[in-house]
Amino acid sequence: MTALQQQGKAAKEAARILATASESRKNQALEAIAAALLARSGEILAANAADLERARANGMSLSLQDRLALTEDRIRGIAKGVREVIALPDPIGETVRETVRPNGLRIGRRRVPLGVIGIIYEARPNVTVDAAVLCLKSGNTTILRGGKEAFSSNQALTEIMRQALESAGLPADCVSLVQDTSRESANELMNLTEYLDVLIPRGGRGLIRAVSSNARVPVIRTGEGVCHTYIDKAADLDMAVEIAYNAKCSRPSVCNAMECVLVHSAVAGAFLPAMAERMAEKNVEFRGDERACAILGDKAAAASEADWDSEYGDYILAVKVVDTLEEAIDFCNAHGTGHSEAIVSDSYTAGQKFVDEVDAAAVYVNASTRFTDGGEFGLGAEIGISTQKMHARGPMGLEELTSTKFVVMGSGQVR
Amino acid sequence: MTALQQQGKAAKEAARILATASESRKNQALEAIAAALLARSGEILAANAADLERARANGMSLSLQDRLALTEDRIRGIAKGVREVIALPDPIGETVRETVRPNGLRIGRRRVPLGVIGIIYEARPNVTVDAAVLCLKSGNTTILRGGKEAFSSNQALTEIMRQALESAGLPADCVSLVQDTSRESANELMNLTEYLDVLIPRGGRGLIRAVSSNARVPVIRTGEGVCHTYIDKAADLDMAVEIAYNAKCSRPSVCNAMECVLVHSAVAGAFLPAMAERMAEKNVEFRGDERACAILGDKAAAASEADWDSEYGDYILAVKVVDTLEEAIDFCNAHGTGHSEAIVSDSYTAGQKFVDEVDAAAVYVNASTRFTDGGEFGLGAEIGISTQKMHARGPMGLEELTSTKFVVMGSGQVR
Repeated sequence: MTALQQQGKAAKEAARILATASESRKNQALEAIAAALLARSGEILAANAADLERARANGMSLSLQDRLALTEDRIRGIAKGVREVIALPDPIGETVRETVRPNGLRIGRRRVPLGVIGIIYEARPNVTVDAAVLCLKSGNTTILRGGKEAFSSNQALTEIMRQALESAGLPADCVSLVQDTSRESANELMNLTEYLDVLIPRGGRGLIRAVSSNARVPVIRTGEGVCHTYIDKAADLDMAVEIAYNAKCSRPSVCNAMECVLVHSAVAGAFLPAMAERMAEKNVEFRGDERACAILGDKAAAASEADWDSEYGDYILAVKVVDTLEEAIDFCNAHGTGHSEAIVSDSYTAGQKFVDEVDAAAVYVNASTRFTDGGEFGLGAEIGISTQKMHARGPMGLEELTSTKFVVMGSGQVR
Repeated sequence: MTALQQQGKAAKEAARILATASESRKNQALEAIAAALLARSGEILAANAADLERARANGMSLSLQDRLALTEDRIRGIAKGVREVIALPDPIGETVRETVRPNGLRIGRRRVPLGVIGIIYEARPNVTVDAAVLCLKSGNTTILRGGKEAFSSNQALTEIMRQALESAGLPADCVSLVQDTSRESANELMNLTEYLDVLIPRGGRGLIRAVSSNARVPVIRTGEGVCHTYIDKAADLDMAVEIAYNAKCSRPSVCNAMECVLVHSAVAGAFLPAMAERMAEKNVEFRGDERACAILGDKAAAASEADWDSEYGDYILAVKVVDTLEEAIDFCNAHGTGHSEAIVSDSYTAGQKFVDEVDAAAVYVNASTRFTDGGEFGLGAEIGISTQKMHARGPMGLEELTSTKFVVMGSGQVR
């Protein structure tokens, strides 16, 4: 047995115990984790300082260093996040859609955990705790495989969680960290079919694509977002400007930010200059097709083919003029990543058609794509935003980390 | 582009049209299929005769020839199955759990099709129609990859369905058959990630395992069933004998049949001889552990390790005596395939504990495992019985062939 197989076996055994743990037991463990994170912040900061020192020595960019860095304040934020998970209802054990069959069999579907969840992520050490506690509350054990840059921080955070779990009477192996941060260990995890029930990559497009194409365990693809907003000819243009501004500028680095605006040719001449003026305060860079460039003049550069598929994550916006609603829908389906797509229109028919025909996790009429989020959708904290259709689609809360089993109560029925 | 990629692209394009087809349009197509199957049964039988002739020349076993063979009567049965699917409610378009958020956003989850579903199966030509029509009713297009033994039959059935689809105003490419029946084409289908949303293997253990371990597209594992019945010390032994008899003998070739009976040592001496007597009429062969053999005498042979993991599919039963409920639960979890597991007991505590701790798609108290079936569970026709936890678990009806999308209706909300 390899070290990772042993870790998988331990996680699977812990999963059987955790699956039937009561909500109060799980909440006790979560509270113990929150308290220990606060009480032992010195240890966490010391480990993080070691990671940061290595990062600086290796010439890591300042923005990546910022993602890696922990502070007292950020640790308080992580602990607060744990307590928010305590407040969420436990999905496990609930019976959904129980029926009694004509032969008297009582058949219900009971919510159960998925089992062992692998999380592969990059430089943000907060994911270590965020992901582990969501899995814990939903009865799943976790195998965490963070980036090598954050290894010392992740190690400290994981040890604190493991000790807190034991103090609350749950197995330490409910949460564990992969000790080997080589590419080989990531590949081994992606193929640990005997022990892993699902693998969720959290990070950039490169990571997610590598996991999706190499894994033999079931994967949930999350977080890749090339999102569009289509300004229809029947749009309220003031509303359209505000929605586009919000979708692009409120937080351009996140996956639900808009990357491309599509505008109907009948209103492009009025809309695009107003949008450009509104976005000027953020110095948004425009990359337009020929007609958009003709309207925007020297404010826009010519878009290349690659622009239509780019997740900029920055104050850059692709701009395209279309002649029909159908053209907009086709463009969203061809170039979107199935994340979030919006139409701004006061036409009932156009809104319905857009919602019916655009194939994405979330489709909007007259609102900003920035709302695609577990909290905003009322699901509580989220483990990610699924852009696939299997199992879960869109923001994934606790319920999306569960499966069901049929529980059949009889009195001697035979077939 | 390979031939299969072209087929995938066509299926994907057809899926976009089918996704928004009305229920009445889909039902028209289904009725056209049922009518054409009956009207053109001569063609189907001629194609099937060619398959059977090749099968006989290649020395196919009589039982496999029987699976391959179609008759007027079987074709009527297939057409009847299509009409039963017409009667099932269309799951597509229903909005589940719509809420209004404090900011006024109205957010609902709308059921949508998965998209393009691949089906890999073996010698039974009836699967060609059964699978295609369930996918069609749930708005999914299908790429069928049947076994080479049934190619002529599958070809005839698929052509009839494609023409019926067109006659009802839907694209022929809603259903298509892979023309190359080599192992390479199966492998290519398992990796057709660009066009296939999910792949469902239907067949024996070898096929299902090969697909699960080679596919990069999402797979739903179905139909592998090593099912146990545990006779607790608090069982009503008359009921236990009838349930065990039914679970083993009513149809031993199917996946929900029992392969192994576990019995508490306190009642083994009374139960096992009574069970053996009841099963004598079917000449069931027993393979027991030491204690079971001591009780059953010359009626049982000694079980080997392999017996505890065997899906016999025949009148053979593994028999094991256990000393505790916990031992029975551990044994089910170690040797079961996560399909169906039953306890016979009048102890409330024992029944609850078994149901809580056994990890399977369906867990039973005081009933036969043979009920694990879409029809018996009230889901209508089924495409298979999932033994995995992701996406769907247990019998899969039309609803399990769907995903959802969040539909968000706003009035200018920004974040």
